[in-house]
Amino acid sequence: MTGFVRLFSAALCVAAVLATGAAVADDEGAIKHRQAIMKAVGGHMSAMAAILQGRVPFKEDLKGHAHAQAELAKIAEKVFPLGSDFGETGAKPEIWAKPEEFKQAVTAFQAETEALVKAAEGGDMGAFGAQFRKVGGTCKGCHDSFRQKR
Amino acid sequence: MTGFVRLFSAALCVAAVLATGAAVADDEGAIKHRQAIMKAVGGHMSAMAAILQGRVPFKEDLKGHAHAQAELAKIAEKVFPLGSDFGETGAKPEIWAKPEEFKQAVTAFQAETEALVKAAEGGDMGAFGAQFRKVGGTCKGCHDSFRQKR
Repeated sequence: MTGFVRLFSAALCVAAVLATGAAVADDEGAIKHRQAIMKAVGGHMSAMAAILQGRVPFKEDLKGHAHAQAELAKIAEKVFPLGSDFGETGAKPEIWAKPEEFKQAVTAFQAETEALVKAAEGGDMGAFGAQFRKVGGTCKGCHDSFRQKR
Repeated sequence: MTGFVRLFSAALCVAAVLATGAAVADDEGAIKHRQAIMKAVGGHMSAMAAILQGRVPFKEDLKGHAHAQAELAKIAEKVFPLGSDFGETGAKPEIWAKPEEFKQAVTAFQAETEALVKAAEGGDMGAFGAQFRKVGGTCKGCHDSFRQKR
C-alpha cells in the first residue's frame, strides 16, 4: 500500500470507528491472531487432503480435523474487525467495503464445515470426500474475492 | 543434505525397512501430511498466545484450541514413519536414531496438551496460562533436539 493510500485508508477507518466504535485496540495483534487461525485452517485442510488422497492412511483422524475446522470457521467471523486492514495482511479492503457479501462467504464456510462434521460422523468416505471439496470451494470462493493474490 | 549423505542415508533406510517392514509407501506424502499437522499445531498455539497476551479478547475459544491441540498431539506420534526423513523436511535424523528419546518428547507434548484441556475446562486463566507455557516448553524441547535450525 502506498503511503497516501494508507493514510487515506487510515482516515476512513478513523471515521468508521467514530461512527461505529467497533474497532480493535490492537490492530497488529488482531492480524497476527487472524493469520494464526488461517494457518490452523490450512493445516487441517492439508492434513485431510493428504488422507483423502490416500497419501497417508489416517482416516481415523478425519473426524477430529472436521471438528477443529468447524470451530475455526466459527472463529473466522470475528477475525476481521474494523482496523485490522493495515500492516502485513493479505486481506482486501473489499472485506470491509462489502460486508454483506463477505458475511455470506464466511457463513458458507461455516455451513459447509458443519456439514463436514456430519459427514465425518456418518462415516461414508465418499460422502466425506464430496463434502470436503465443498469446504475447499468456500475457501477458494472467499480467497478469490477477499484475499490479495500471492 | 549433500548427495552423498542423502544416498548413504537412503541406503541406511532401505536396510531399516528390510529389517522392520515399517516404512511408508509415500514418503513425500508423509512429509506433506506431517508439515500440515505442524502447521495446524503452530496456528492453534499462536492463536492461544494472542489471546493470553490480551492482543485479542477471544478467551471463549481457548477450550476449542486446547482440544484441537491435544488431538494433534496424539496424531504427532505417527507422523514420523521410517522413510519420511528425506526430501523437504526439517526433521533431524536423531528422530529415527534415538527413538526412545524422541518418543519421550512426543509423550511430554501429549501429556501437557491433555493437561491444557483440563486447565481450559477448569476455567482459571492463570492456571491455563501456566499450563500453556508448559506446552510451549515441550514444543521447544522437541524442536531443539529434533528439528533443523531454520
